[in-house]
Amino acid sequence: MGKFSERKVIAEIAGRQRTGAADLIKGIGDDCAVIRKSPGCVELWTTDTLVEGVHFDLSWHAPELLGRKAVNVNFSDIGAMGGKPRFILLSLGLTQAVEKAWLDAFMQGFLTVLEQYDVILTGGDTVSSGERIMISVTVCGEMDERHVCFRSQAQPDDRIWVTGTLGDAAGGLMLCQKGMFPAEKYNRLCQAHLDPKPPVALGSKLAKSGLIHAMMDLSDGLATDLAHICKASRVGAEIAGQDVPLSGELQSAARSLHFDPLKLALEGGEDYQLVFTAPPQNSQMLVELCSRENIEIICLGRIIDGDGVVLCRNGQRREIGFCGYEHTF
Amino acid sequence: MGKFSERKVIAEIAGRQRTGAADLIKGIGDDCAVIRKSPGCVELWTTDTLVEGVHFDLSWHAPELLGRKAVNVNFSDIGAMGGKPRFILLSLGLTQAVEKAWLDAFMQGFLTVLEQYDVILTGGDTVSSGERIMISVTVCGEMDERHVCFRSQAQPDDRIWVTGTLGDAAGGLMLCQKGMFPAEKYNRLCQAHLDPKPPVALGSKLAKSGLIHAMMDLSDGLATDLAHICKASRVGAEIAGQDVPLSGELQSAARSLHFDPLKLALEGGEDYQLVFTAPPQNSQMLVELCSRENIEIICLGRIIDGDGVVLCRNGQRREIGFCGYEHTF
Repeated sequence: MGKFSERKVIAEIAGRQRTGAADLIKGIGDDCAVIRKSPGCVELWTTDTLVEGVHFDLSWHAPELLGRKAVNVNFSDIGAMGGKPRFILLSLGLTQAVEKAWLDAFMQGFLTVLEQYDVILTGGDTVSSGERIMISVTVCGEMDERHVCFRSQAQPDDRIWVTGTLGDAAGGLMLCQKGMFPAEKYNRLCQAHLDPKPPVALGSKLAKSGLIHAMMDLSDGLATDLAHICKASRVGAEIAGQDVPLSGELQSAARSLHFDPLKLALEGGEDYQLVFTAPPQNSQMLVELCSRENIEIICLGRIIDGDGVVLCRNGQRREIGFCGYEHTF
Repeated sequence: MGKFSERKVIAEIAGRQRTGAADLIKGIGDDCAVIRKSPGCVELWTTDTLVEGVHFDLSWHAPELLGRKAVNVNFSDIGAMGGKPRFILLSLGLTQAVEKAWLDAFMQGFLTVLEQYDVILTGGDTVSSGERIMISVTVCGEMDERHVCFRSQAQPDDRIWVTGTLGDAAGGLMLCQKGMFPAEKYNRLCQAHLDPKPPVALGSKLAKSGLIHAMMDLSDGLATDLAHICKASRVGAEIAGQDVPLSGELQSAARSLHFDPLKLALEGGEDYQLVFTAPPQNSQMLVELCSRENIEIICLGRIIDGDGVVLCRNGQRREIGFCGYEHTF
């Protein structure tokens, strides 16, 4: 058969699924499912799976960092709704090649992040998984119902913000794949891939502030993730190419290795930064709020009437929606 | 390194994990985690992963039945605490070999069981998983806090009950592996492996009845699962070999294929029946309660002071605790 894509699979499953339950506020189609827990309080649910050779490579991914990443990519989804992670489940598929020391280090990393966030491992499953290690994590978060930030709340004239430089993780992955790790010069890029640190607490503060409209985390690249916001909010987006934040390291690596850093920033994926939209009159307050958390946010575009994501660069306009990373089968 | 077992991995992880949170009633160590949702009401969480070539074989497992099984093995854990499943998350690892028709049939089976139990798919993840299909399911259930049945509540002199014949699924798997499927004569055995139907509603009724002490589901074989109850309850168990319920089909297959049906019944795993303990004076009421649900329960032993699981057979006593199926790595 022809290949079919992750997005089509999910859309089809969502379409065949009934959605009615009094306490289900949001099912498939956002960073997390949102379920009413008690009056005024909701639970957030998310799950993410990492597969050896697809999402990580043991030849450069230290087990402790992999354990940290397996947690952080899920916490990123909780933070992107504005919530706080509370409980976690771990399904671990191990291979015959796994050594006790590897597993200890993996769990050390995993549990360190739980401690940092005061989150409890409540259960899981351990199985043999054949040739590839498989890590499937489910997280339950919690928050005030009034503050939940959905993808669907972007409005025309909103400014589009991100919480850090983009493309670093994709650049780091490229360096690892080229055998250039460890590379002191490009350490920031490799670390962005190996040990992402999503701004979970900031997500919660932004949601509570009432200053923003839509929010989500950047996991598949800005081009794709912003397209999700646009589709869910029935709006379009314009990105100013020169405003996309690129780190010095990414630009330096791009010059040495002859790649386009902007392409990586837009399509690379795994940034685990937040992208959010907010009315222009809130810009100054947002910059100040984030600055108090030592995070510099960057405005790189605006929401418009219409649909799709347009990149404006050197006087040209190009549709880039859904150009990011996607699994195909 | 030497092999290390699933049980050791879980015990070690549980030991390194802090457990304190006001609303966490039970973490690692039962069929489900139990978290207080609102006054008097708890949530139950469980997760189970199936890996191609480890837990299922596509050459005899039809996709629709596999989809059903991926749900049912998780619902079994919810029922074993006495709860009702409410929400489900699906992480699906697909290979290049997966056809659209296969995926459609798998999802058809998956969603059919959700409909039967009025459960909603709230999210998930779809990834490439290399050589093997990987299905990781997380379920959230709900119930009255007063009625939760833990493994740790067995008491000396309790009778030990199961909700159906044992070893059928293990027998069915053996037949499939020997290329004897489809085998009309042994259809019951193959179906027990391919399409288990755990008594989830009965679990809930038993819990509400107040007639029972400990309960869990039989997934790793009676010898292992009962040993979990004994360890958690700090008691021992005696099983009467002649009272272990064996189906006519299993006994017939055992005669033809020269295996010991009792061994399969004790160690085979994947029965997805319930095992529970109850004071002897409740026996008649329990038989009647289950009979009203058209389920014949069988008493096959009793809880004693001490520890371990002893099989009494032909005048001999043999320790069989933790002899069931276990993943090793």
